Amino acid sequence: MSEEILLKNNERIDDLLYRERRIIQSADEFCFSIDAVLLAHFLCLSKRERLLDLGTGTGVIPLLACDSVKSVSAIELNPVMADMAKRSVALNSLQGKIEIVEGDYRRIEDYFVRESFDVVLANPPYRAIGSGELSGLKGVASARHELTATLIDTVSAARKMLRFRGRFGLVHLPERLGEIIVALHENKLEVKRLQFVQPKSAKAPNIVLVEAVYGASPGGMKALPPLIVHNDDGTYTKEILRIYGEKV
Amino acid sequence: MSEEILLKNNERIDDLLYRERRIIQSADEFCFSIDAVLLAHFLCLSKRERLLDLGTGTGVIPLLACDSVKSVSAIELNPVMADMAKRSVALNSLQGKIEIVEGDYRRIEDYFVRESFDVVLANPPYRAIGSGELSGLKGVASARHELTATLIDTVSAARKMLRFRGRFGLVHLPERLGEIIVALHENKLEVKRLQFVQPKSAKAPNIVLVEAVYGASPGGMKALPPLIVHNDDGTYTKEILRIYGEKV
Repeated sequence: MSEEILLKNNERIDDLLYRERRIIQSADEFCFSIDAVLLAHFLCLSKRERLLDLGTGTGVIPLLACDSVKSVSAIELNPVMADMAKRSVALNSLQGKIEIVEGDYRRIEDYFVRESFDVVLANPPYRAIGSGELSGLKGVASARHELTATLIDTVSAARKMLRFRGRFGLVHLPERLGEIIVALHENKLEVKRLQFVQPKSAKAPNIVLVEAVYGASPGGMKALPPLIVHNDDGTYTKEILRIYGEKV
Repeated sequence: MSEEILLKNNERIDDLLYRERRIIQSADEFCFSIDAVLLAHFLCLSKRERLLDLGTGTGVIPLLACDSVKSVSAIELNPVMADMAKRSVALNSLQGKIEIVEGDYRRIEDYFVRESFDVVLANPPYRAIGSGELSGLKGVASARHELTATLIDTVSAARKMLRFRGRFGLVHLPERLGEIIVALHENKLEVKRLQFVQPKSAKAPNIVLVEAVYGASPGGMKALPPLIVHNDDGTYTKEILRIYGEKV
């Protein structure tokens, strides 16, 4: 497939720095951040498992995680993003492993069979409406703010799609941790692993990674040591370089 | 008051390293740990406020926090501990500032007026029954394990005693964070500040400090940078030395 055919207006091809894999992104849309990369690495995955990515955006999580599982399904509401993700899957010849569906995960059962996944991941819009400034780009605004799916919608979709004892991995803002844990519990998902991500060692966490298990009993959460992104001199820490350099 | 009169069998007087304040402890009972000291420093207190300490043990939290508030009431179920705490208050001539009540906070309204405190603190038993080995010393066992008050009992007592918008400070195990946040929410207490405590910078957190506000809306939690107890060479970090050295 030639790049002339693949790329539309304002689009570019970025290197994922992993297995020579490449991803199509656009200056007009939400581009993936470190949050998605960290989430793709956070859970321990198995080759027997079926994974679902809720609100996949450009498809970065499927592109990074697909080698560790049996198959990845991913759903994206924004038709421009879903189209980019589909073309990125083709660009990497991963059509046999990754399925991208354009659709609204608030009606997830219209697209997938209930309780048919072992693992669900989500890097959802972080901010409630009214918190922080809205982007002027419609696609970027709905990737960042809960203009469409809310936290409750995301957790509810995960719960519907997970088999009993399946795992849900979520990346979000620490400031919403209370709401996250309550929403999980109200959907029979109990938090079992948690890691804060800090920009530097002395800085407050600005990202939280959470793993919850469907149907588990409460308690027994494992808090990991924080993941520090930058050394004091601004370079990436060994842990981050290891994540960027390693297979998921 | 002479020390001969004050001390009973197996008791000793320890220095609190704060305002020449001293505390009576016993080799047969639970002795306070760093957890209580960290909790005494975790909330921002005001001289206008009334504070309640649930399950005060030897009274360490009242002895450390009383200068920062108007008054401290404290309740302790174990009569041996309550008696030691009362004598420590007298030893430091703080009878005008600290009131120690021997009683069961599962029936907190038998002792105090509902919604009459600005701040409630608790360093409760950490372990559910069946998790970890029980101490052979009865008093130590019930300070560590939920033989009497459970997490739900503790949160429920806090909720009953707090005025609207009052704050609840809790120190606990990270592994129970999910249960803690859910129990708080179910009692109209929303987590607003959270800090993990790590033994060293690369180690997983082994303590969590939580501040919740009664009647607040969910969201807006502030995650603090982790508190590291020891430097890599085993000495205390500057943050810990500052806490031990400073007024609450």
